Amino acid sequence: MILESAYLNIKPNETEAFETAFKQASAIISSMNGYIEHTLQRCLEDDHLYLLLVKWETLEDHTEGFRGSEEYQEWKALLHHFYDPFPNVYHFEQVNLSS
Amino acid sequence: MILESAYLNIKPNETEAFETAFKQASAIISSMNGYIEHTLQRCLEDDHLYLLLVKWETLEDHTEGFRGSEEYQEWKALLHHFYDPFPNVYHFEQVNLSS
Repeated sequence: MILESAYLNIKPNETEAFETAFKQASAIISSMNGYIEHTLQRCLEDDHLYLLLVKWETLEDHTEGFRGSEEYQEWKALLHHFYDPFPNVYHFEQVNLSS
Repeated sequence: MILESAYLNIKPNETEAFETAFKQASAIISSMNGYIEHTLQRCLEDDHLYLLLVKWETLEDHTEGFRGSEEYQEWKALLHHFYDPFPNVYHFEQVNLSS
């Protein structure tokens, strides 16, 4: 399992519209192959900052499957215009903490 | 519930020692009042980057309870020397995505 993580900086005065659009976009990502779950988190220290976390079965389910899909064009159209700057997206694998 | 999030940049050649120290530090944070769970995530694109996610019952359980505790001095001694630069830590609340 892979965790996708991105801090999303939203343009001034657009956070409410962003949250509304994100609810619509959630249905898109949730339908994709290899998608497991996602959450959107609102920052307490900076009200224009969000954290998006998405769990995928494999890295390629995100980078090839989702980003190469027609659905991704809808996702982009709904969300990308809210971001400034455009976010850095990273992928992570969980470290086993049992010793 | 509050999610603490921090990208951790680890000094060159110290990631193995960091992961070992983090396992020890995990026992410290897990014992704190208001702690719910945590994960450490290793980045696939940058092998010196980690993502720490910690769930707390309240913001103050982290910012006052944990950071004001004796246990935090042990946590600092175990981990802070691995970081360069010192991380930005943010707190988040989950956005309700059901419309």
